[in-house]
Amino acid sequence: MKKTISQATIDRLPLYFRTLRLVEAENMDIISSDELGRRLDITPEQIRKDLATFGQFGRKGIGYDVRELRDRIGNILGLHNKWRLAIVGVGHLGGALANYVNFAPLGFSVVALFDNDKEIVGSEVNGLEVNDASSMEKIIAERSVDIGVITVPASEAQGVVDSLIAAGIKGIWNFAPIKLNVPIDIPLVNEDLSVGLSALSYHMSQD
Amino acid sequence: MKKTISQATIDRLPLYFRTLRLVEAENMDIISSDELGRRLDITPEQIRKDLATFGQFGRKGIGYDVRELRDRIGNILGLHNKWRLAIVGVGHLGGALANYVNFAPLGFSVVALFDNDKEIVGSEVNGLEVNDASSMEKIIAERSVDIGVITVPASEAQGVVDSLIAAGIKGIWNFAPIKLNVPIDIPLVNEDLSVGLSALSYHMSQD
Repeated sequence: MKKTISQATIDRLPLYFRTLRLVEAENMDIISSDELGRRLDITPEQIRKDLATFGQFGRKGIGYDVRELRDRIGNILGLHNKWRLAIVGVGHLGGALANYVNFAPLGFSVVALFDNDKEIVGSEVNGLEVNDASSMEKIIAERSVDIGVITVPASEAQGVVDSLIAAGIKGIWNFAPIKLNVPIDIPLVNEDLSVGLSALSYHMSQD
Repeated sequence: MKKTISQATIDRLPLYFRTLRLVEAENMDIISSDELGRRLDITPEQIRKDLATFGQFGRKGIGYDVRELRDRIGNILGLHNKWRLAIVGVGHLGGALANYVNFAPLGFSVVALFDNDKEIVGSEVNGLEVNDASSMEKIIAERSVDIGVITVPASEAQGVVDSLIAAGIKGIWNFAPIKLNVPIDIPLVNEDLSVGLSALSYHMSQD
């Protein structure tokens, strides 16, 4: 069943989830919409409206139970699925993602690495061997990979995505600066590090 | 003078800018709000409303001049400022950012690298020497660094930010998973790679 949550609310869920995890690490059990709003720079009214979408949470004048709310949002985000990732393109960015420690607590694990550079194939990154891109289809099936992470140059990205989809991947996380064509039933999220930096530039340019 | 552009519109500007750059690379001179909308998954009405905020662009039934619109949005984003970055923490992620090729076309340049690990200090990353964190204040002044990029562990992030601000930095781009305290006049953008991945998880969890 598809939930009727607005796209704007969905976009904010990962931010709520991230903040609740930070709050939990600070040993806070209860958080008010005011405090959540202060940390996220979102109005408390917006937060109460977003969270009301999933049912009754929190108590008036007290606040939200941090762990309960985090679990509920985590479930809505599908984080209980324990997604398995393959990184294609083990250059600087792919290598950094293979070593990124903040995925594991969310239930994501990197289970395969691929490259077509003979100097990189066979090496180990964070305890995982880099496989030749030609073995992608076989290994993705064997290791039940769910998500393909695209960290190859833009010119190679569409070819890699076509192979991943042929191999049965369920979602694509793309770092290549190019518009990819994927079937409508394969979710695609484009990541561009220059977007955050541009937003910072904007704020620094205001008097 | 502060422009009265809504936060939601500002958040979309880097996406418009990124898409216009891709479109330009495809040698398109004119783009319609329909086509921009299709590429960004934003309604054409929303796009026309956002762009109307900055004055009259585009011609009814024809579309927007790609280069003109890209330049105009780039100026609003302050990208003409040619910001100078220092990366603090040259681990996997910091190293990947030092090598990231997509910043330069936007006018960002990495001019300094810092770490406190003796094994890393003195090494070269993308042609730039890694300096000892103890020399941060001096080098940031010498090289007129504008933006501090925080890629140290969460436990060290606040201390690094305090030093950067004392050294006269004008903005902070933070990758450490922690809420940082900065003076109100120093813009701060928090980056969390797990946010995009969580959004992908959400879409993959829908039937």
